[in-house]
Amino acid sequence: MAKEIVYTQRVEFGDCDPARIVWFPNFFRWIDAASRHFFIECGVPPWHETEKTLGVIGTPLVDTHARFIKTASYGDTLQIRVSIAEWRGKSFVQRYRVTKGEELLMECEEIRIFAGRREGGGIFAMPIPDAIRQRCE
Amino acid sequence: MAKEIVYTQRVEFGDCDPARIVWFPNFFRWIDAASRHFFIECGVPPWHETEKTLGVIGTPLVDTHARFIKTASYGDTLQIRVSIAEWRGKSFVQRYRVTKGEELLMECEEIRIFAGRREGGGIFAMPIPDAIRQRCE
Amino acid sequence: MAKEIVYTQRVEFGDCDPARIVWFPNFFRWIDAASRHFFIECGVPPWHETEKTLGVIGTPLVDTHARFIKTASYGDTLQIRVSIAEWRGKSFVQRYRVTKGEELLMECEEIRIFAGRREGGGIFAMPIPDAIRQRCE
Amino acid sequence: MAKEIVYTQRVEFGDCDPARIVWFPNFFRWIDAASRHFFIECGVPPWHETEKTLGVIGTPLVDTHARFIKTASYGDTLQIRVSIAEWRGKSFVQRYRVTKGEELLMECEEIRIFAGRREGGGIFAMPIPDAIRQRCE
Repeated sequence: MAKEIVYTQRVEFGDCDPARIVWFPNFFRWIDAASRHFFIECGVPPWHETEKTLGVIGTPLVDTHARFIKTASYGDTLQIRVSIAEWRGKSFVQRYRVTKGEELLMECEEIRIFAGRREGGGIFAMPIPDAIRQRCE
Repeated sequence: MAKEIVYTQRVEFGDCDPARIVWFPNFFRWIDAASRHFFIECGVPPWHETEKTLGVIGTPLVDTHARFIKTASYGDTLQIRVSIAEWRGKSFVQRYRVTKGEELLMECEEIRIFAGRREGGGIFAMPIPDAIRQRCE
Repeated sequence: MAKEIVYTQRVEFGDCDPARIVWFPNFFRWIDAASRHFFIECGVPPWHETEKTLGVIGTPLVDTHARFIKTASYGDTLQIRVSIAEWRGKSFVQRYRVTKGEELLMECEEIRIFAGRREGGGIFAMPIPDAIRQRCE
Repeated sequence: MAKEIVYTQRVEFGDCDPARIVWFPNFFRWIDAASRHFFIECGVPPWHETEKTLGVIGTPLVDTHARFIKTASYGDTLQIRVSIAEWRGKSFVQRYRVTKGEELLMECEEIRIFAGRREGGGIFAMPIPDAIRQRCE
């Protein structure tokens, strides 16, 4: 079984748009935070430390696919379940289920990389660092 | 040929994260703005008007799939090309290509609906309003 | 003694800018959320309910003055202490102290109003509703 | 006469809250962008360059005071007039007037510093660099 963590997110007034529902880019803000918390809760140090030890500056997104099923509004509290569905050579698939109580609001599946900084600017995909993968499985 | 509009977006310091590149949820903020501008430039009135005339309060997202190819940083100016790739019964596919000069940075394909407000809260998918579709083809 | 509530906020990677510190507009996002939670914790119903009962659609900002003393970064957890420092005829002064452990990071003092919706668009300042003030003192 | 620049900002749907007006933290996002554009238009290089040449990593905010006079909503285009009202030893006062056509929507006055990075983390206020001040007067 893959490790799973739960990230909890309040929905605030300012997260909602004139239709009174969460403006969708905010779901991606929360998913990105949930992604990072997955690594933190698995015991991976913060990126400003891994930059020095492993050269990893973060896990930028390569591809994301999300389905929006139900809306949320301010006052709601959301649970975001995060796991890693697949490890590839230089990328991994991270999966999210956003629920409000029993209701599924949104599902998302991402491809991310462990990024190193390239000389002269820009970033590149590193092979999955063993030290990180072992903590996350 | 489907209509296409170009939405221009400056990248600002605050759009970038500690890795000095655009934090990806900001791409979705811009894409959502580009989506609305598509309708505006096609001559569709703003949603607070269509709410009164057609019952349409906006075009919430049902599904989105994005590929991130290259990064951007502050000082860059991006072009977002928007078109409608497909009309379905109660939804449509909106397509985006984000470029910086000649470089493709990101591609995105969304399924959106024209939403009406349901009695007692919540929203529902309306059949594509002819008055809107005619302006957008 | 004025009532005081504490609102807790995690700082996330995406809240930080290329200088690796919280991008300051995010402090105002959190302060706005803390402002609303003050009313919620005092037992004031959410604005979509007060709109129907009292005509109050929210508490928009008229004036804000903030001092930034220390920076924060991702991984930090902040406490925001909120109270109402003064009640005026058609406005009130809301005060915030943002701390990280023992350290004061930011102070803010705002003037807000209870807003009603004006016929034909726009908003106006209502006299302080007794039903709200009584719960907040 | 102090130099003044004008920064233009569209208001988008997602910038507005359930009260259908701009959610105020967004004004600070735009003001921060306008602040940086002031320096760019005066000929100051971007901060990632000044970091190498002058040690300046940006101009973080120390104090801000804003008055909100009228609201804006999506579809509006705003002008932000920016100037430096005062130079001090290790800080400066930057002033903003946000208008929509002839209407004044918001005024803001900030104290900012030119920040250098401190050994071991954190930032500090540098004396105003002559090379920057000369371009901005």
